[in-house]
Amino acid sequence: MQVKLRPDERIDQLYSKDISIIQSDAVFSFSLDAVLLADFAKTTGKRIKRVVDLCSGNGAIGLFLSEKTTAHITMIEIQARLADMAQRSVQLNDLESQIDVVNDDLKNAAKYIEKDSVDAVVCNPPYFVNYETSEKNPNKYLAIARHEITTNLNQIVAVAAGLLKMNAKLFMVYRPDRLTDLLVSLRANRLEPKILQFIRPRVGADANMVLVEAIKDGKPDGLKVVADVLTYDGDDYTPQVKKMLYGTSK
Amino acid sequence: MQVKLRPDERIDQLYSKDISIIQSDAVFSFSLDAVLLADFAKTTGKRIKRVVDLCSGNGAIGLFLSEKTTAHITMIEIQARLADMAQRSVQLNDLESQIDVVNDDLKNAAKYIEKDSVDAVVCNPPYFVNYETSEKNPNKYLAIARHEITTNLNQIVAVAAGLLKMNAKLFMVYRPDRLTDLLVSLRANRLEPKILQFIRPRVGADANMVLVEAIKDGKPDGLKVVADVLTYDGDDYTPQVKKMLYGTSK
Repeated sequence: MQVKLRPDERIDQLYSKDISIIQSDAVFSFSLDAVLLADFAKTTGKRIKRVVDLCSGNGAIGLFLSEKTTAHITMIEIQARLADMAQRSVQLNDLESQIDVVNDDLKNAAKYIEKDSVDAVVCNPPYFVNYETSEKNPNKYLAIARHEITTNLNQIVAVAAGLLKMNAKLFMVYRPDRLTDLLVSLRANRLEPKILQFIRPRVGADANMVLVEAIKDGKPDGLKVVADVLTYDGDDYTPQVKKMLYGTSK
Repeated sequence: MQVKLRPDERIDQLYSKDISIIQSDAVFSFSLDAVLLADFAKTTGKRIKRVVDLCSGNGAIGLFLSEKTTAHITMIEIQARLADMAQRSVQLNDLESQIDVVNDDLKNAAKYIEKDSVDAVVCNPPYFVNYETSEKNPNKYLAIARHEITTNLNQIVAVAAGLLKMNAKLFMVYRPDRLTDLLVSLRANRLEPKILQFIRPRVGADANMVLVEAIKDGKPDGLKVVADVLTYDGDDYTPQVKKMLYGTSK
């Protein structure tokens, strides 16, 4: 299906999934975080019938997941402009029957989705605490996507916990510098961390992202810290990341 | 100085530090955890005047640290037999003026060491929750060293926090499967995690140990997940670990 683009918009392809996605540097473009999270999230299998993407931005993660799940996917995004981009990308990929886009504050999620009904929640949230002194992007769209202006970690985790069925999973991408905040918040909201995977630009570098899988009402033990993902090999992506982006490691 | 050995005891060398240490397979022998923690702990510098080793076992970590700090080191060990081994190892290395061994429950630490007076605490604690159903070692010495029988994570962290000066550091080795317990307990006890380092047997394997550096009353952000330590290269130790053990990477 054809859709209208605004002047600042372009269409990018995620070749590995044959997905087209409307992007805009002036508003929002997905980054590697979204690709890594979509790859990490376990959403295959017949039991997974309902998936929710919180803080969905331009819809990248839900769109990527559509290829590896038959579940219905609901995206929730507070920014009208971003939700509109996501909606048009859904149309562009003829995915209206699988994906719906909700333009609302995630704290209202229960208006649209029954509590304890969701099989998997994915989330690439704003990473930065909104201190009064924080240097924020003067672009309001980007500032809201990056800083905890309209929501915060604990609210997101609480909403995810409320939506998920017992033993269903939350998959999040986050920053290692707030790992303690993340694990404390998950534990406090009945979401037990079970898998951590750190992302590093190269061997020997500090981790710059972390992926977490947490289970609602899981037992408080048995966290696995699995093999790192390395993103760069020299100036090029590693074969592992190329596979996620292009569908081939070449 | 010469010391008497019991029938089950032997003297091992940590060649990298020229330290002799009394070991016993029937009671307690230090393992790689202790070597990794001693290497990780930052105890050099003139400001570090007082170091405490909680759950010191046969004294391995304190003995290893004696070579890289001029601080006075106090070891606290609840098991009389292990504290006695540690005391004789201190004599064996002529370190009586630098190290003292306290044979008591760590909950009584404040009887021996003033609160808010310590510059660094190191700890290689029992790793396993003492569930009634836990399979424990029938050897009482080993069971107490491995399971939370006489103490537990939260008590250890609370004692460490009480002993440390403001902005002074705790260094611990722990198991990744309880990382959430660890970070939650540190945060709850005013010890903010600042550095995590995961130990893996080899590239691509799940982490089997984690080192943490936490600062008393540190700001709740800025955690760094630094480069992993790999322990094995085929059947042999990696050069990095050989250096810690033998003082040379060959």
